[in-house]
Amino acid sequence: MNSDNLILISPDEYAMRLGRLQQAVAPLADAVLLADNADLYWLTGRVFDGFAFVPASGEAVFGLRRCAHLRGAGVRTMHKIEEFAASLPAVRRLALELDILSYNVAVRYTRAFGLGEADIVSAGPALRAVRAVKTPAQLRMMRDSGLHQETVYRRVPSLYTEGMTDYELQVEIERASRLEGCLGQFRTAGSDMELFMGNVLTGANADAPSPYDFAMGGAGLDPSLPVGANDTEIKPGNTVMIDMNGNYNGYMTDMTRVYALGKIDPLALKAHQCSIDIHRALVDMMKPGTEAKVLYERAEAMVKERGLQDYYMGHRQHAGFIGHGVGIEINELPVIAPRSRDIIAEGNVIALEPKFVIPHVGAVGIENTYAVYADRVECLTPAPEAISYFMI
Amino acid sequence: MNSDNLILISPDEYAMRLGRLQQAVAPLADAVLLADNADLYWLTGRVFDGFAFVPASGEAVFGLRRCAHLRGAGVRTMHKIEEFAASLPAVRRLALELDILSYNVAVRYTRAFGLGEADIVSAGPALRAVRAVKTPAQLRMMRDSGLHQETVYRRVPSLYTEGMTDYELQVEIERASRLEGCLGQFRTAGSDMELFMGNVLTGANADAPSPYDFAMGGAGLDPSLPVGANDTEIKPGNTVMIDMNGNYNGYMTDMTRVYALGKIDPLALKAHQCSIDIHRALVDMMKPGTEAKVLYERAEAMVKERGLQDYYMGHRQHAGFIGHGVGIEINELPVIAPRSRDIIAEGNVIALEPKFVIPHVGAVGIENTYAVYADRVECLTPAPEAISYFMI
Repeated sequence: MNSDNLILISPDEYAMRLGRLQQAVAPLADAVLLADNADLYWLTGRVFDGFAFVPASGEAVFGLRRCAHLRGAGVRTMHKIEEFAASLPAVRRLALELDILSYNVAVRYTRAFGLGEADIVSAGPALRAVRAVKTPAQLRMMRDSGLHQETVYRRVPSLYTEGMTDYELQVEIERASRLEGCLGQFRTAGSDMELFMGNVLTGANADAPSPYDFAMGGAGLDPSLPVGANDTEIKPGNTVMIDMNGNYNGYMTDMTRVYALGKIDPLALKAHQCSIDIHRALVDMMKPGTEAKVLYERAEAMVKERGLQDYYMGHRQHAGFIGHGVGIEINELPVIAPRSRDIIAEGNVIALEPKFVIPHVGAVGIENTYAVYADRVECLTPAPEAISYFMI
Repeated sequence: MNSDNLILISPDEYAMRLGRLQQAVAPLADAVLLADNADLYWLTGRVFDGFAFVPASGEAVFGLRRCAHLRGAGVRTMHKIEEFAASLPAVRRLALELDILSYNVAVRYTRAFGLGEADIVSAGPALRAVRAVKTPAQLRMMRDSGLHQETVYRRVPSLYTEGMTDYELQVEIERASRLEGCLGQFRTAGSDMELFMGNVLTGANADAPSPYDFAMGGAGLDPSLPVGANDTEIKPGNTVMIDMNGNYNGYMTDMTRVYALGKIDPLALKAHQCSIDIHRALVDMMKPGTEAKVLYERAEAMVKERGLQDYYMGHRQHAGFIGHGVGIEINELPVIAPRSRDIIAEGNVIALEPKFVIPHVGAVGIENTYAVYADRVECLTPAPEAISYFMI
């Protein structure tokens, strides 16, 4: 009987991910050390306290703390990185998560391996590139998250009651999401991105600038977390943009829909339709080999043709991207931005979010998450795209 | 008319925090650069996208991105750290958040200031020490968070319905917390700590090991976030330990209470009383000048006197600390642990959490957050401490 339980993905799947990582790391270093929760989860299907040491070829070795119940090939218990490093074959050049590990931690790990700073290299670009290409098993998990997320969004109109604020509505959507199985955890690459469970924007608050690098802003409830709903009452003539957490199994989808109370300004309807049309146009272009920046340029041209550029991706403040890769973290590759050097590849999962802020009305536009295949694009968030109206 | 709006704390309060930071940094460096959201919030009362450059004496300079609406003395807009650094007086020795900034970012900042790695020093210990001593204004905010948190905990019995799982109960407490104004954001020092809104543990799941460095574990719903509730039904004879998010204004309190269904094992009652008695004993010792490790030792001696050591701070796996500072982040100084070198100081806010895991019953013990003054200790989470029983 095999009682191995560290690796939770299938042996074939693990071999595929390990092989892709090794292929990306081999030109850079003798080995890569993974310590970040998102990277460890990507490789093994589990978050654990410890390290994965992946040589450029051969088997990985896992150093585990606080996980005495986990077993498997290459699994060693250890207390400190120094002890783990001493148990491994010597390396001359080591790739570390230098875009994630703190400076102090990176220096400690470097010394633990008996190396100097000239001997380490950033594993970040290789890891981001490998993680940007999802396997069929990962796509199944994202498809599942998308279905749950869509189910919650369909319930949103039934959660609205007259006189509600954006924040009160958000709390009910949070509860519906959690009861649908949403894990809540919102993993981002980089520590400066903070958001709790999603963003619900209505009226003038949609135009409030936020310090975070999200597509939309909002003042938030408190200056310690200045983003999103600020307890503004949803009034007739307002839209409500819903962009809530889609993490149901460790892999997340990203989805935005718009709801409205009463009759809204035709400008908002026009902009919403422009967003839908941009999705259609970009999906047709989203083939392996396309430059990401070309998608951005096409969307921008469509916005300008319709004279909507003053409202596009914000009004007082404009976001610099209209789409991003998504997976374990919300901001993976590729980035759909004017200076992006990314090329669309088979296996990419891309959230597109061409949005508009119409002053005093709110935000409009949709966000869908798309999987890119050799010959087609699949929408993982296939809910109705038109504005839904709250009944009062 | 003064339209300055960057600094949201009073001028006196700002002067006090700036002065304390400068006093801690002066022996180390010519200046400190703050970039971390928690540190910027501590200094200014606001999270913004940019930097605070604090010389060892004199006025701070703020470099802001994406915040065109913010103004104030020393405020400059900028796009890149290189541009900001070039606008500042030269420094020979710079303190950086080397325990937070990624290696790549720290190296970039170092070069932006025209410095080499020998010219930078970790600001972490100084920042942690300064932030461990709360001002009266910060204590007022924490007292306010504690009152809101306590209000939610009092409602827990009314949220329970027969047949509920730990997860279902957690979702209702999340909603009650959010409607009470909980921000949800759970800031931790270090990127390896992950938890969504808190930890609800019942029955055998209380004894499930978790990779995270929290006092208690739990398997969680999914291997991507292996901590806390796992959708176990709350059964007669089980306790339910509730340790939920207490962040209502950027400063959080930390509080745990225990609920139960039906009659529970006398061993659980005995252990719960031991926790309460440890709180009483440690509060009496929690005076400025006391070594943190002495508190740990006293608690451990009380546990051994009562023969409860097999259940203390876990059963299958034992946590290595029984208390921690709390404020903007959940894991501030001082740490109440056997090898802690921290000394209790006036202004410290300390969460004490001597807890026990009773196999197949659940977890027991309470957690309170205490403010330390020169001559007394204030409990910021003053709710009833006995086990509350769910009515069915």
